[in-house]
Amino acid sequence: MVPHHPARDQIELANVLSALGNPMRLTIVRVLAETGERPCGQVGTYLGEGISKSTLTHHWRVLRDAGVIWQQPAGRENLLTLRKEDLDDRFPGLLDSVVAGIGDLAPGGPARRAPRTGR
Amino acid sequence: MVPHHPARDQIELANVLSALGNPMRLTIVRVLAETGERPCGQVGTYLGEGISKSTLTHHWRVLRDAGVIWQQPAGRENLLTLRKEDLDDRFPGLLDSVVAGIGDLAPGGPARRAPRTGR
Repeated sequence: MVPHHPARDQIELANVLSALGNPMRLTIVRVLAETGERPCGQVGTYLGEGISKSTLTHHWRVLRDAGVIWQQPAGRENLLTLRKEDLDDRFPGLLDSVVAGIGDLAPGGPARRAPRTGR
Repeated sequence: MVPHHPARDQIELANVLSALGNPMRLTIVRVLAETGERPCGQVGTYLGEGISKSTLTHHWRVLRDAGVIWQQPAGRENLLTLRKEDLDDRFPGLLDSVVAGIGDLAPGGPARRAPRTGR
């Protein structure tokens, strides 16, 4: 089943900011901004160990419902992509300034430790 | 009593985005961006009628704790100011792109009707 995504003109600023306002979701956005389209599972490895599948699913859903990412079924996984064109069209400069403000990822790949608390 | 404000280097991106991710708080930011320093009560009039003092107090606190506004006692009220310099220093371009993305205020002054639901 293809999950619901808002159309470009239905993307609302408050929803985007609220979705981005979480350290784990910011890390997800940073990974996708740096690496492009990625399977869910691979993105999850950047967030640290011990994060449950349901927590990840929750974060994909928040980002998807707000219009920040595409989530497309591909085989047994979902592919995640930043909706950069849509966000740049709706809110010029926003995504770039957010991505620039996120701390660097651990060099060379997935983080060994990442904050586990959502806030 | 002067309320607590985070120092510039303690302002965190996730907190700022989370604080901004609400239609009412976006309106507050827009009012302050357009009109400069304002007493709480005056800013409140832009948010529509029937909003309780405790709701307004909550929104000032969320914005203040995240480092988005200064809230300074002045007589019987508090003055609110956007921390534009601090935010521009920490996250260049972010505040401008957010303010540009907020819909226009009602022309000529306070809104007659505004969304009442926080989300």
